[in-house]
Amino acid sequence: MNDYRIDNLQYANWSEKIFREMREGGLDAVHVTIAYHETFRETILNMEQWNRWFEQFPDLIFQGLTGADVRLARETGRTAIFFGFQNPSPIEDDIGLVQILHQLGARFMQLTYNNQSLLATGCYEAYDAGLTRMGREVVAEMNRVGLVVDMSHSGETSTLDAIEHSTRPIAITHANPHRWHAALRNKSDTVMRALGESGGMLGFSIYPHHLKDGPACTLDSFCHMIADAADVMGVDNIGIGTDLCQDQPDSIVEWMRVGRWTKGIDYGEGSASNAGFPPMPSWYEDNRDFNDISKGLQGIGMSEIDINKVMGGNWLRFYDTNFGPAS
Amino acid sequence: MNDYRIDNLQYANWSEKIFREMREGGLDAVHVTIAYHETFRETILNMEQWNRWFEQFPDLIFQGLTGADVRLARETGRTAIFFGFQNPSPIEDDIGLVQILHQLGARFMQLTYNNQSLLATGCYEAYDAGLTRMGREVVAEMNRVGLVVDMSHSGETSTLDAIEHSTRPIAITHANPHRWHAALRNKSDTVMRALGESGGMLGFSIYPHHLKDGPACTLDSFCHMIADAADVMGVDNIGIGTDLCQDQPDSIVEWMRVGRWTKGIDYGEGSASNAGFPPMPSWYEDNRDFNDISKGLQGIGMSEIDINKVMGGNWLRFYDTNFGPAS
Repeated sequence: MNDYRIDNLQYANWSEKIFREMREGGLDAVHVTIAYHETFRETILNMEQWNRWFEQFPDLIFQGLTGADVRLARETGRTAIFFGFQNPSPIEDDIGLVQILHQLGARFMQLTYNNQSLLATGCYEAYDAGLTRMGREVVAEMNRVGLVVDMSHSGETSTLDAIEHSTRPIAITHANPHRWHAALRNKSDTVMRALGESGGMLGFSIYPHHLKDGPACTLDSFCHMIADAADVMGVDNIGIGTDLCQDQPDSIVEWMRVGRWTKGIDYGEGSASNAGFPPMPSWYEDNRDFNDISKGLQGIGMSEIDINKVMGGNWLRFYDTNFGPAS
Repeated sequence: MNDYRIDNLQYANWSEKIFREMREGGLDAVHVTIAYHETFRETILNMEQWNRWFEQFPDLIFQGLTGADVRLARETGRTAIFFGFQNPSPIEDDIGLVQILHQLGARFMQLTYNNQSLLATGCYEAYDAGLTRMGREVVAEMNRVGLVVDMSHSGETSTLDAIEHSTRPIAITHANPHRWHAALRNKSDTVMRALGESGGMLGFSIYPHHLKDGPACTLDSFCHMIADAADVMGVDNIGIGTDLCQDQPDSIVEWMRVGRWTKGIDYGEGSASNAGFPPMPSWYEDNRDFNDISKGLQGIGMSEIDINKVMGGNWLRFYDTNFGPAS
């Protein structure tokens, strides 16, 4: 029975405690962000840290490379950890690093993080000209090796351009429908439909700035949003990407927003008066709450088959077909 | 039947021509040097170049990671290419890079190249104090992941220290017995015996500076040397590592010897009057001549079983047990 549980985006301050909570929450797989603005060498240092965790906690976690590893995780009572980047900074200006990083296990890479990158335009830029010359080349190379294009923080034109140019389905790993909550990071009906029609995936975020009513958002409202999104783009093309940033100090949200691109400050989705990590909604504090989303979906009358698709089955199907070389 | 053909050391100026010659020579596997003095990032660039060759010439070559890939190469009429470093420069000062580079396919790493390194002493230093503090740590990490210690260019004390400290067999991928030709790079009976007793491997080199009579060395003399080495250290612990540097300009032998460690010049095994690559013996010009070594061994009366061990069987057994995590 396909009742796998996958959280397709986290950037927590990982520790044994959190790995144990992943197990308590029944998570078979988690896609973890291992780079925001890191260079190639800095990304390798982050992979080295994960290698040490894999060595230290072999009974809790291991590195996932394929969909088969999600099944192995279930069979062995562990959580498979899949690597991703929220920015193309790890490939620097070198297309050859796409394959190298894929060889090391990278499975998702955002083409932009809020700003213009070498590849595409971020959602905070005033003008979005779509994929760049290098962007088209890199998307083709990502398609060739099986590194999934993620457009969560990209502008709308770039996102539609990526969906069209990519020969394989893309993902928006962590965002919600703009029709539910009109945040700049949330996605239009146009994007949702194009994504669904192309076989892509949208992962619903529980990061408060993406939620209607922010931290006060109810589980019921979140689940109704999911059911509505299923109507717009199909129940086979949606999943969860909580964007859980557990145990991080506020210096990290500043790093996420500012990196090294300004000497000043940028509040991203926050503001001067609300600069730090926003508090999570009461119904989602950590990985142990993951299955409560299933209960919420049951509560609004979603079928068990559809709940299992949303909670992990769709991501697993997507992993199975998009993490290896194009056939 | 175990009649595999493996050349366990080359540093050619690779090209489609040479890959085709590997096929004509019937080579199932070649261990290629991809770093002499390169930093981590420069080594990655060399891997990127190999990735492009693997993409361009999939009918001739592919990247080998395990002994099973040698068998796959035979079945599919291709040559499996295994990566190695002649210096620990690719790991810089970072033990975490051992696993990262193993993940990318590195299978052999010399602890030194002629000079003192962070890990051990090279064969051209005046004093050899053996493995350093970091050297012991790195050997243990190499043992853990399955990256083979190679001491071809190391001093004798460091080599014996590595054999003793390593919990898995080590290799001397390209050198000859000192008893046959008293070059600084060739190995003493003491080293040969310690290597054989520990399950290690010695690969015989056809680089002229390692040969009795240099380029004038005969195939017959080379083969008698092999038979004699079998008597000293056992016929199960020897193989071939030609050190073929085909089509390289002389600027490359200068890079090999000088790297960036001096503003002056060092002639290594050469001399001011013989500074470039020495000419190869007439019986070994390129990969197409590989099987002539078998004929030479037949000519001196070696059994077919032993010939097959020397020509690749021993390396394949070594690959099978030393390229993965310690069990």
